Amino acid sequence: MPVSSPDIADRSPLALAQALIRCPSVTPEEGGALQWLGGVLEAAGFAVERPCFSEPGTPDIDNLYARIGSGAPYLLFAGHTDVVPPGAADAWRHGPFEGAVSDGMLYGRGAVDMKGGIACMLSAALAFVAERGGDFSGSLGFLITGDEEGPAVNGTVKLLDWAGARGERFDHCLLGEPTNPSALGEMIKIGRRGSLTGKLVVHGRQGHVAYPHKAENPIPGLLRLASALLDRPLDGGTAHFDASNLEFTTIDVGNPATNVIPAEARATFNIRFNEGWTAESLGGEIRRRLEMAAGNAVRFTLDLQPSNSPAFLTAPDAFTDLVVEAIEAETGRRPVLSTTGGTSDARFIKDACPVIEFGLVGETMHQTDECVAVADLDRLTAIYARVLAAYFSGRSPSGR
Amino acid sequence: MPVSSPDIADRSPLALAQALIRCPSVTPEEGGALQWLGGVLEAAGFAVERPCFSEPGTPDIDNLYARIGSGAPYLLFAGHTDVVPPGAADAWRHGPFEGAVSDGMLYGRGAVDMKGGIACMLSAALAFVAERGGDFSGSLGFLITGDEEGPAVNGTVKLLDWAGARGERFDHCLLGEPTNPSALGEMIKIGRRGSLTGKLVVHGRQGHVAYPHKAENPIPGLLRLASALLDRPLDGGTAHFDASNLEFTTIDVGNPATNVIPAEARATFNIRFNEGWTAESLGGEIRRRLEMAAGNAVRFTLDLQPSNSPAFLTAPDAFTDLVVEAIEAETGRRPVLSTTGGTSDARFIKDACPVIEFGLVGETMHQTDECVAVADLDRLTAIYARVLAAYFSGRSPSGR
Ligand SMILES: [Zn+2]
Ligand SMILES: [Zn+2]
Repeated sequence: MPVSSPDIADRSPLALAQALIRCPSVTPEEGGALQWLGGVLEAAGFAVERPCFSEPGTPDIDNLYARIGSGAPYLLFAGHTDVVPPGAADAWRHGPFEGAVSDGMLYGRGAVDMKGGIACMLSAALAFVAERGGDFSGSLGFLITGDEEGPAVNGTVKLLDWAGARGERFDHCLLGEPTNPSALGEMIKIGRRGSLTGKLVVHGRQGHVAYPHKAENPIPGLLRLASALLDRPLDGGTAHFDASNLEFTTIDVGNPATNVIPAEARATFNIRFNEGWTAESLGGEIRRRLEMAAGNAVRFTLDLQPSNSPAFLTAPDAFTDLVVEAIEAETGRRPVLSTTGGTSDARFIKDACPVIEFGLVGETMHQTDECVAVADLDRLTAIYARVLAAYFSGRSPSGR
Repeated sequence: MPVSSPDIADRSPLALAQALIRCPSVTPEEGGALQWLGGVLEAAGFAVERPCFSEPGTPDIDNLYARIGSGAPYLLFAGHTDVVPPGAADAWRHGPFEGAVSDGMLYGRGAVDMKGGIACMLSAALAFVAERGGDFSGSLGFLITGDEEGPAVNGTVKLLDWAGARGERFDHCLLGEPTNPSALGEMIKIGRRGSLTGKLVVHGRQGHVAYPHKAENPIPGLLRLASALLDRPLDGGTAHFDASNLEFTTIDVGNPATNVIPAEARATFNIRFNEGWTAESLGGEIRRRLEMAAGNAVRFTLDLQPSNSPAFLTAPDAFTDLVVEAIEAETGRRPVLSTTGGTSDARFIKDACPVIEFGLVGETMHQTDECVAVADLDRLTAIYARVLAAYFSGRSPSGR
């Protein structure tokens, strides 16, 4: 797909991040972001593809795949250009799609999640390619989707299938999501917990509160079942994972009449689980606990929602060490190897190659006045540059 | 208040019940029912008053007070002519305000609750007055409201105040609510449990399920507090009362997002309590249990709704015996002296004089196709006639 080659005189991560922020790419809109990114990469010598994926019931989504080099090892930079909606634009100090800089901070939707991270990867890659030219034996790629904040159906998961079908094989992936809680260098994500949602309905029989023997109140049964899920921990955690955690997110009966015993009580829970479980084994444990607590006394229905968020761990190895060293050299901090937080597209990439995540400071992500320190953009670019230099030094951690 | 005197050739309880059912007196509408009743009583020699009561925020309500005789003892028949709405009229086999008879059953809204009961009282009273004329030394009264099924603010409670202010003093009251679960003669109500409603809110802090340490889920706290109210019985019952009973009627969080920990969880419970408690002492016990369970770990708010339904008992005495004997003589059944079921206007009358309740079979009350056996109307009339005869026999149970 031919794209225009914009003249970018300024290859600083700030300028690149501003260019991306100015594209209003709220999921599912491409907003010009991938178009611009493809143009820059192509001008730098990358082969750029822009596959668009569809599925009934979801919006069509634009994606980008770019590669330079044909040898091994192959390092993939991954990320997304789509952003969550800005909310009320006039609540922002600076327009969410302006890219204004004030007091050393760049403001805008996506500043940290994750147009800022892509700008740093891009800036480091452009400098690397400009400096090394054809003089590196490996391959460097970009796998960028416009469907990370949305249903994630027409994004990374299909892009990987598409690339796999073309014979693309990756050795390592670095995903640029914001991984640091409050300061650059604090945290690398080497895995993610899985997510499982369950909907529990306890069935009773409606009646008048004055005649409880003629009715069957489902609420005590729900209390009993819910307590059975909360009373004992699911596990004690593993070397790299916290203990799995179950949260009830809602209980709803919706009975407005204070003299009526309701017919039914509903609850929803969500579990963030570690590598000790699959969604299937965990679902089995939940069902066993509920059946044990219910006995013959409580009639219930459990609906476990199909999860595309398994728990996974990228076991720390030489590539992890390389990234840790680059971070420590630039920030003076030795990052924690963490598996905390929500899900990300790493859950899909881990099936294609080892993937770890490191990006900006996530504090303001998804909020009004999302922003990033310009100094952080420069330091993250320097970190990515150190990763590229070390990865393609000939002492590759891939072992090839 | 002058009322017309209808010519009623047929003083059978069926004819009188049909006349009442044909008045569409859905609360708060008088519907012609009290007007008709007043006319019949006045024609029979009763002094009839029709006070209307008002209160801001509630509809004005018509009421009726009628008395014949001026001496002691004074027996009061009490009841209500208002009815609950019929729902979809076309779902009824016979129109809800038609008063159709089919297969020995009289159909219509109020057939058992309690235009049928009033018709039986009226039929017995008309016969008694016609037979005895002025030849009885006591007094017989009717205290009938149009606000029992509604807020019960402008009805019996004000009618009793109004009568008290006029110097009216009653010795005994028989309230004609449907008291029999399935067959005439099964059950007299000699008291009622009280009712107390509580609204419980547990306060937490909203957050993302992936970061539970940054949030505070109110649901486990609610489960703990609710269990503390259900774990131990409130009491073991008394000689005349079942154990007090607490039912949770709803729990509502209303959080649609399965990845969000909610800020607040709400529950409502209703307690039907026996004479061992006042609303105040029970509220204190509930609050103590909640505070004990909450400790410093759960922040909650408890709102106890002001209750005008205290528990009360009319201790069985000679008047109760007289009614029991009348029932047994007509039905062959010895009625249970019960305090079960919902509240009634007896909770107000018990402050004016001893009150017991006996009426028709309640099975179809408040339902589509509410109906009563014509034979039951005749038998209940005969029971009320026996009560009148015995009460005014000169061997009065009032002890005067
Ligand atoms: Zn992101
Ligand atoms: Zn009633």
